[in-house]
Amino acid sequence: MKKLLNAPSDLVKEALAGMAVAHPDLLRVQLDPAFLVRADAPVRGKVAVLSGGGSGHEPLHGGFVGRGMLDAACPGAVFTSPTPDQILEATRAVDGGAGVVHVVKNYTGDVMNFEMAAELARDMGIATETVLVNDDVAVENSLYTAGRRGVGTTVLVEKICGAAAEAGRGLADVAALGRRVNDHGRSMGLALTPCTVPHAGKPSFELGPDEIEVGIGIHGEPGRRRAKLEPADRLTEMLMDPILDDLPFRAGKDVLLFVNGLGGTPLLELYVVFRKAHELAAARGLRVVRSLVGPYITSLEMAGVSITLLEVDEEMVRYWDAPVHTAALRWGV
Amino acid sequence: MKKLLNAPSDLVKEALAGMAVAHPDLLRVQLDPAFLVRADAPVRGKVAVLSGGGSGHEPLHGGFVGRGMLDAACPGAVFTSPTPDQILEATRAVDGGAGVVHVVKNYTGDVMNFEMAAELARDMGIATETVLVNDDVAVENSLYTAGRRGVGTTVLVEKICGAAAEAGRGLADVAALGRRVNDHGRSMGLALTPCTVPHAGKPSFELGPDEIEVGIGIHGEPGRRRAKLEPADRLTEMLMDPILDDLPFRAGKDVLLFVNGLGGTPLLELYVVFRKAHELAAARGLRVVRSLVGPYITSLEMAGVSITLLEVDEEMVRYWDAPVHTAALRWGV
Repeated sequence: MKKLLNAPSDLVKEALAGMAVAHPDLLRVQLDPAFLVRADAPVRGKVAVLSGGGSGHEPLHGGFVGRGMLDAACPGAVFTSPTPDQILEATRAVDGGAGVVHVVKNYTGDVMNFEMAAELARDMGIATETVLVNDDVAVENSLYTAGRRGVGTTVLVEKICGAAAEAGRGLADVAALGRRVNDHGRSMGLALTPCTVPHAGKPSFELGPDEIEVGIGIHGEPGRRRAKLEPADRLTEMLMDPILDDLPFRAGKDVLLFVNGLGGTPLLELYVVFRKAHELAAARGLRVVRSLVGPYITSLEMAGVSITLLEVDEEMVRYWDAPVHTAALRWGV
Repeated sequence: MKKLLNAPSDLVKEALAGMAVAHPDLLRVQLDPAFLVRADAPVRGKVAVLSGGGSGHEPLHGGFVGRGMLDAACPGAVFTSPTPDQILEATRAVDGGAGVVHVVKNYTGDVMNFEMAAELARDMGIATETVLVNDDVAVENSLYTAGRRGVGTTVLVEKICGAAAEAGRGLADVAALGRRVNDHGRSMGLALTPCTVPHAGKPSFELGPDEIEVGIGIHGEPGRRRAKLEPADRLTEMLMDPILDDLPFRAGKDVLLFVNGLGGTPLLELYVVFRKAHELAAARGLRVVRSLVGPYITSLEMAGVSITLLEVDEEMVRYWDAPVHTAALRWGV
């Protein structure tokens, strides 16, 4: 295993310490239990938006903490759910009296621990709402999931809910908007290589020299099938066809197209995929009005790509465009 | 070779086509010869800033085209200098009558081709100035270089010169500022893995399972030495010590600390390195007043990191903070 780390057990803690000194204007880090909050938390009277999950998907979620996006992020160990006490303490730290929205990717451990934290928060008088993200069209049920997995749409839910909360919308409104984003977003990914979880020390699965995993999960969960490596245009079709065939994409609609790198794939290749995905969306009569290209929800150093398509309405576009100031997404400020 | 591409010979062209449809508000792409210009080029009366070099280092340079940074970027084939005619045509396309600054990384082919283009532009009545970047403390002379190689400081030169040009500074001023940034910036990197140039089809060098290359160049050029993989803190010292021992870092000064991923290294690991680099800078009495963490000058999918330290003055910080709107760096707009 070749990685830039000290003890594997210190990786997440040391990375958080790095974020704290790199972005003191944006966020504060607490180490026991571990979470990040925006520098000015809690913001009195504002709905707070909180997410979390296993580490190893950076910049998700810690890189999205800041003005206009997440109030807090709870990083678990690599590919391991955060604990209920982490989530509870972060929820308490960011509640400004208007309640807290939990954005939860649909993995069994995450769902369970966020539920427990939400109950404990309620007992303390903090109102919470949960937005469950389950946008991965690859498979129903998976290694760590009942139903569909939550992947790329999570980034879009966090941005749009964060902007709505910043604009002063109420708890129920922000949560309803987040659910609408999830309902209108669909994703699928493929891997060219596996990745290595530091405390395991070896790759989580194996792929032959010309083999890929179509429909890969962000923890290396099996997808739909193993396939041979093919030209990028054909691989892009393998992802776009199932996405486009799923609800809700209708000709004439506006979409946000998000081509995401899984960690080890050069930007050059992501733009090759974006080019073809854009062409395929246009061929179905969809108008790409916003785009995002880069590694935003990763699987450590895995080589591969995922595509997320979000059918947007005017309100979503407005909140997408609203100012955001985080380590990984920033505009308007 | 596992890559998301169609024909290797189409990679750069198809990636440019992807950039064109992903960022129509920011830039325009021309394919023969290949270059990118900001959407509103040429900007009448403004000094233009242009850079270029081999592809494979994305987002450098194309990802930095837009308001407040580069007016144009000329991508060569992967790890191959752009041709004089590419550079000349791009220079002509962005000249707004106030001249063009060429930001050139110190590689023999780049230097030669930029020189030739500058002469041809001069014959056509376009004033140019060249800022040569040679900030890599690892080695004197290298596989493709006489003198020091140009690496991470290039990103900082492009941002700061771009902002100065946007603010209306004249040709000589912008170039002088760029040279001052280069004079005050120092970098060094290390690789954990090699990378594969698509048309070669195999890794450009080999590293044993616990071996690293200290002082690696961005094309995989040999560095100072092969070494054993060690804990991240020790590796960070191996990069920071030669940087800090070089001119011009003086106790009490303000610095910008830039921890750059070479492509295949997770963000989590970059923040572990940032944490230690910040500590080592502070131990020498330097105050880290600005930071940048992420993959900004890469070597395809190479795993590794480079560190750049820039001793900043008030003018550099002001231009660093100025609004920028490009695909890869954006703030203030």
